[in-house]
Amino acid sequence: MTHLVNDPRTFAADVLTGFVRAHADRVREVPGGVVRAAPAAPGKVAVVLGGGSGHYPAFAGWVGEGMADGVVCGNIFASPSADQAVTVIRAADRGAGVLLGFGNYAGDRLQFGQAARELRADGIDVRIVTVTDDVASAAEPEQRRGIAGDLIVFKIAGAAAAAGADLDRVERVAARANARTRTIGIALAGCTLPGQDEPLFTVPAGRIALGLGIHGEPGLSTEDLGSATEVADDLVDRILAEAPADAGRVAVLVNGLGATTHEELFAVYGRVADRLTAAGLVIIAPEVGEQVTSLDMAGMSLTVTFLDPELERYWTAPADTPAFRRGRPGPVGAEPPPAAAAPPADALAPPPATVVSPGSEDSRRAAEDLLRSAAAVTRALADHEAELGRLDAVAGDGDHGQGMVLGVGGAVRAAEEAHLAGAGLGAVLDAAGRAWSNAAGGTSGALWGAALRAAGAEVGNDRAPDADGVARAVDRAVTAAADLGGAREGDKTVIDAAVPFAANLRAAVGQGAAVPAAWASAATAAEEAARGTAALTARLGRARTHGEHARGHADPGAISFALVVAAVAQSSTVSAEES
Amino acid sequence: MTHLVNDPRTFAADVLTGFVRAHADRVREVPGGVVRAAPAAPGKVAVVLGGGSGHYPAFAGWVGEGMADGVVCGNIFASPSADQAVTVIRAADRGAGVLLGFGNYAGDRLQFGQAARELRADGIDVRIVTVTDDVASAAEPEQRRGIAGDLIVFKIAGAAAAAGADLDRVERVAARANARTRTIGIALAGCTLPGQDEPLFTVPAGRIALGLGIHGEPGLSTEDLGSATEVADDLVDRILAEAPADAGRVAVLVNGLGATTHEELFAVYGRVADRLTAAGLVIIAPEVGEQVTSLDMAGMSLTVTFLDPELERYWTAPADTPAFRRGRPGPVGAEPPPAAAAPPADALAPPPATVVSPGSEDSRRAAEDLLRSAAAVTRALADHEAELGRLDAVAGDGDHGQGMVLGVGGAVRAAEEAHLAGAGLGAVLDAAGRAWSNAAGGTSGALWGAALRAAGAEVGNDRAPDADGVARAVDRAVTAAADLGGAREGDKTVIDAAVPFAANLRAAVGQGAAVPAAWASAATAAEEAARGTAALTARLGRARTHGEHARGHADPGAISFALVVAAVAQSSTVSAEES
Repeated sequence: MTHLVNDPRTFAADVLTGFVRAHADRVREVPGGVVRAAPAAPGKVAVVLGGGSGHYPAFAGWVGEGMADGVVCGNIFASPSADQAVTVIRAADRGAGVLLGFGNYAGDRLQFGQAARELRADGIDVRIVTVTDDVASAAEPEQRRGIAGDLIVFKIAGAAAAAGADLDRVERVAARANARTRTIGIALAGCTLPGQDEPLFTVPAGRIALGLGIHGEPGLSTEDLGSATEVADDLVDRILAEAPADAGRVAVLVNGLGATTHEELFAVYGRVADRLTAAGLVIIAPEVGEQVTSLDMAGMSLTVTFLDPELERYWTAPADTPAFRRGRPGPVGAEPPPAAAAPPADALAPPPATVVSPGSEDSRRAAEDLLRSAAAVTRALADHEAELGRLDAVAGDGDHGQGMVLGVGGAVRAAEEAHLAGAGLGAVLDAAGRAWSNAAGGTSGALWGAALRAAGAEVGNDRAPDADGVARAVDRAVTAAADLGGAREGDKTVIDAAVPFAANLRAAVGQGAAVPAAWASAATAAEEAARGTAALTARLGRARTHGEHARGHADPGAISFALVVAAVAQSSTVSAEES
Repeated sequence: MTHLVNDPRTFAADVLTGFVRAHADRVREVPGGVVRAAPAAPGKVAVVLGGGSGHYPAFAGWVGEGMADGVVCGNIFASPSADQAVTVIRAADRGAGVLLGFGNYAGDRLQFGQAARELRADGIDVRIVTVTDDVASAAEPEQRRGIAGDLIVFKIAGAAAAAGADLDRVERVAARANARTRTIGIALAGCTLPGQDEPLFTVPAGRIALGLGIHGEPGLSTEDLGSATEVADDLVDRILAEAPADAGRVAVLVNGLGATTHEELFAVYGRVADRLTAAGLVIIAPEVGEQVTSLDMAGMSLTVTFLDPELERYWTAPADTPAFRRGRPGPVGAEPPPAAAAPPADALAPPPATVVSPGSEDSRRAAEDLLRSAAAVTRALADHEAELGRLDAVAGDGDHGQGMVLGVGGAVRAAEEAHLAGAGLGAVLDAAGRAWSNAAGGTSGALWGAALRAAGAEVGNDRAPDADGVARAVDRAVTAAADLGGAREGDKTVIDAAVPFAANLRAAVGQGAAVPAAWASAATAAEEAARGTAALTARLGRARTHGEHARGHADPGAISFALVVAAVAQSSTVSAEES
């Protein structure tokens, strides 16, 4: 919903004031809207846009060189008045006539149409282009609404005017850009007007509203939410069904409506680019981001403009507005960089794979035994992924479960590869540690990686470790993790489970216990200690941890450690190692 | 929540693929992240950034001239691995050493620290700057987290490197920028990891979590949600409390976390700018937008960097990255525009106020009588604002209630002013119509504006209209609205209530009824007709209306018309006119 509001009645005005303050180098407020702070030269056709507010960057964010000379700013989702349009157009006019652009909505047509009649009566030549890109809104092209295609149509019109085209030509170019622009959008969740508690509409969980407009207008249909790829395919299919016969080079906009993440837009764009390319189209200067929003609505749209050489020239021409820029800025830094040199070839290659020196027969068998517990450990972490994430979210960022699952997956794959290549136990543990750190990243990845590699260095590749060797390897692993992380027992980290585990294992082995029994007893101690972290108060803790909030919750790193050692105890590995 | 996902495990990789495809002119993928497509000249200090994904534009969106040479991209909210960092740094290195920048999180420190040690052993000079701008995360500056201040610190470091500074100097400048940067943020709603159904955390309705990080880390406290101005004041107060003694010129970033609208950010920024200016600070090149997000989290933060001359030079230097650009592009259009000419002075003045010619005594009294119903009409619309909005949301954009309330408010104020200035009924209606259209905008504003002005033209300013004159004025008003909107009866618009109203009034007056009785009967007819629109199927309709969805719901324009005429009937106006 919309949270940060003074008075809903003045919201649009408050927004405009803040916008003008933030972009005072580019825009200036006039009654009814904004114009360029530095007006274009006399004799240039003025491009004036307008419509309701709530769609930023559309339309005020597009005022500047190469794009709009002025924008008429209505209330939230409401067209401006004719008087507002008259004032802004008069302020933007440079004596060569005005192209007035807006989306095809009844209110905008009425108000802007009246303004145009008044201005024409005063001798100002005003031409109108209404954008009609939304293929879902009507079968007849001229009855369609204008949505995200606004960006491409107005960018092209602005570039034509900047290039010195006369009003007839700017009008023709804008109309052709519109006629060759198609958009189809989806909604995932509704938007809420300032001061309201309820959204304008809702979309059921797991569904999408296909063909929804930018003011909460109803869509064509609701469908099941598919993957990013499936959504991209559906949108591309609907656009291609409307492609003109001479389609070849295309401008593309993947537009976010507000609450949908940039990440999702890129995930969809990757597939869109593949599909359009496979269809024989060449993508020119694509845009992925928020250009025509609908307050905090979740959803996105795909716009394709089928270019011709003139439209392409204007689409790629420079522009410099608060929200849309194209073209390189002047020299960056003290002097312009020389032509790009190719990077040294070896910088691009991934790091060389570690060469495996073959282990002894015994050491290789010990590795094979260890790998028998891989499935149990993997399953234990996968089963608890969501729970570990929830625990981590109490004081951290909620990614611990995911990190452990990714880490163990990478470690098992690397360990199996090393084993197949003839590695002994030490090299297998080293490969597993490297892979865990790479696959998981993060704190837990670094700690498990360091621990496994330290254990590998201890056991080596010459012989299978005996019980004392296993205890020493565990000691070294715990010490390596503690040194790397800088945490001590009582800091409420994985160390709080790992230290009792190592101590218990060492003591049991010292009393003559076989590894399976000693490991099982140590795993029980680890589990108790991990649960006990719930009672600890975080002290030094991790940089991310706010101690006060974590009180009463177990540390996820300690819990996942206990899960891993318990899974090993319950699988055949340790006993096999010992046998 | 995050909707558009293929496999949550590959989400970060899918995002990176789409990002690189969209920005192939600026970035190139390497194992572990991205580097500039056109590498900087040999001998430039390389600036490499990194961290978890899910924060776009941070960090991959900042690769380019004047900013980063490479970015290491971890999984969602998880630091990358040391091996990833090594690969990206090798690919970005131009032989003059590397500044490695990241936020102060345990995982990032571990993994990047390890990478730096490995590279130093190989002879690559790597220096580290960790950003610690989040004043809410710890009392001791060096223990704080890095959040949106990343943008300013890394922009300044990148500009120093672009200007040819050596590694010692880039490191010093970056450290000073960080030491002089403060951020405080608020959360309004939690973010959801890809593939999860539940957010990482929730914020109770009407509350804000103050001091929340960018991964759902817990905040300092929760407080009641205030207005945009109150939130801005709170954030500014907390930043100013940490201002250094030599504070003077400042870089400012108002950063959106994902789901919070651009409009809200501008509403907050307007107040922030006022407050900082009032505190004697000079704002240099402010930024308002999404720079360091947290998936679809709702919330924002305020960052202030207390500049010195060197920091200011680097903060304002050109940059050209996918998501952050500074500096003017090359000439826009066929030839560079000449120096900005001042716009003609008359273009900036609001349109001249209509000069009121005094009305006759009778006509002025009729206007006074009409104004007695103003309060009743205003109240009726205010009482039904939310209901009218909901009706409008069925087929339109939900702004009808707001538009009517704004319109009647403006109309009443203008009518009272005109009346006080001595206007007759015709001029009062004309002023009310103009003001309604301006205050409301949109379709309803245009129609009510045209109708009131047509009625005013009919009644004139010479005498009070008799019953027949009232009926003729209503007829003309309805005709004017129908002509302007192009709607006919049965199109499910305001016309469906207005036409029966006018016909009923005309018939009753023709049969000798006095205006109060005729008006009351006509108002009843209007109400029935308005309710009847629920049964109509939208046919030609408004361009925004999807006929199928509007079936079974009354037209909000017809309902609000019925409300207005009923309020007039129940107030004393019409009878007073008649008396």
